[in-house]
Amino acid sequence: MSLVIVGTVAFDAIETPFGKTDKIVGGSATYVGLSASKLGQKPKLIAVVGDDFPQSAIDMLKKNNFNLEGLEIKKGEKTFFWSGKYHFDMNSRDTLVTELNVLAGFDPEMPESYQDCEYLMLGNLAPVIQQKVIKSLKRRPKLIVMDTMNFWMDIAMDELKKTIALVDVVTVNDEEARQLTGEYSLVNAAQKILTMGPKFLIIKKGEHGALLFDKDKMFFAPALPLADVVDPTGAGDTFAGGFIGYIAKTGDISFDNFKRAVIQGSALASFCVQDFGTKRMETLTSSEVRDRVDQFVGLTRFELEAVEY
Amino acid sequence: MSLVIVGTVAFDAIETPFGKTDKIVGGSATYVGLSASKLGQKPKLIAVVGDDFPQSAIDMLKKNNFNLEGLEIKKGEKTFFWSGKYHFDMNSRDTLVTELNVLAGFDPEMPESYQDCEYLMLGNLAPVIQQKVIKSLKRRPKLIVMDTMNFWMDIAMDELKKTIALVDVVTVNDEEARQLTGEYSLVNAAQKILTMGPKFLIIKKGEHGALLFDKDKMFFAPALPLADVVDPTGAGDTFAGGFIGYIAKTGDISFDNFKRAVIQGSALASFCVQDFGTKRMETLTSSEVRDRVDQFVGLTRFELEAVEY
Repeated sequence: MSLVIVGTVAFDAIETPFGKTDKIVGGSATYVGLSASKLGQKPKLIAVVGDDFPQSAIDMLKKNNFNLEGLEIKKGEKTFFWSGKYHFDMNSRDTLVTELNVLAGFDPEMPESYQDCEYLMLGNLAPVIQQKVIKSLKRRPKLIVMDTMNFWMDIAMDELKKTIALVDVVTVNDEEARQLTGEYSLVNAAQKILTMGPKFLIIKKGEHGALLFDKDKMFFAPALPLADVVDPTGAGDTFAGGFIGYIAKTGDISFDNFKRAVIQGSALASFCVQDFGTKRMETLTSSEVRDRVDQFVGLTRFELEAVEY
Repeated sequence: MSLVIVGTVAFDAIETPFGKTDKIVGGSATYVGLSASKLGQKPKLIAVVGDDFPQSAIDMLKKNNFNLEGLEIKKGEKTFFWSGKYHFDMNSRDTLVTELNVLAGFDPEMPESYQDCEYLMLGNLAPVIQQKVIKSLKRRPKLIVMDTMNFWMDIAMDELKKTIALVDVVTVNDEEARQLTGEYSLVNAAQKILTMGPKFLIIKKGEHGALLFDKDKMFFAPALPLADVVDPTGAGDTFAGGFIGYIAKTGDISFDNFKRAVIQGSALASFCVQDFGTKRMETLTSSEVRDRVDQFVGLTRFELEAVEY
């Protein structure tokens, strides 16, 4: 069952209270794919980089089972670059630099070998490009998951809503859910978003966990409280990659399996934040993931007893 | 098994984005006791009010099974008054007025009939007064739970730490845990607080749930996501009342039972915020509490499946 991921492959320069990096490999599709690969997926990547993108980074993606047939390398152009600085609370950040470079002219091509796509992950990108990817598939995938961000709500709300109407699952953070709907309560915001087309919604709350909704049900997964959070970059994408990776692995699109998938995503994201950039994800093993998933059982499980009061 | 609660009984005037109140009955001991009463407790109250405290409020407390032998009514003095205004996010508030009135000279007396105390809840009060209450009990209770707030960390840190060393369970919010320890990570903050004396710590995160710690284990309970949050006043005290009320009801001070108690506290707090002041708590029934506790199972429960990856 093939998983196709479209998104950014980028250079990031990151500063947190715990240190800073030079240009390192980042991007939504990078994190989504690395995460899904830990759950046994061979993610088929659709993305664009410049010819400054180093062979070592390509080798790293290959080593993590990425299929790079859909990775366009534009000669004479530079890779998308983002630089940001996190505040002390690690929940908010300032963007210092955004150089779109190759991303400005990104026109994704779907390789013929990707047409077996059963699970499609639309990483954060311009909504029109996300739409184009959906439409370039001859057969509708079993599940389409779409991530987005406030930036597109600010400048392309109409296109964003058109794209949202085409997908099965939307992932946004809490502030984005509020911006998208004008509702402060996340319960009300969720119900409004579910009238826009998707059957499921995930609201990511960072260190405060994630909420999964359908029209009738609600599930909450905490983030694992950690002693050492070094760099939150990519945590949301890693979460999404764990979510869709688990669903692709199991082939089960029931709400009960989505709960498990949310827990997998939370477990994977908890590794991502423990080192800068993709560093921890590159060496992470499946058995480490399984151990951490078990920790979520301990963290959340309680057994009610019959008490008269 | 008798539950003794010391804390404030107050007048509050509250403004939220959804409306405002005149002076209504509030105070930490009021909320703690109302909450515990829903779990079948007859809380023995230690508090002080002025002679402006109306008979209707006393009747309300009696109707909710408070034992008022330890409620001192000071003639010619006025009841503690607090007024506050919540911001749009409902997570932060400004204090507009604090009139200590009778609270300034509060010197709690332990009625002889309270000496059977098995469970002692120290609601938010000056740490020296909390200490005095502990010392006025001839026999150490089975469990002492203490709430406090940043105000005492600012002006009475030494006394606060002495009190913390005397209790079994401390409850603070996330910012207070950080202020008390200088640790940003809640995991690190928790471990530091547990070296100060208490065996258990609860970190309340408001709408983001609550964490329970002992030296080796950690448990997380979400807050129930709600469509309608009207007034957060008293939610933390209601949580604490549900926690100690459930433990007093069951007589079980194991970590596993503390998990259930945290869930009860979360369920009770989710009612408290749905109307102004104590309004919802006054009419809440035990069967409504049980139904809401069941909702927490649905919200958090997932079943792992054996998947090879």
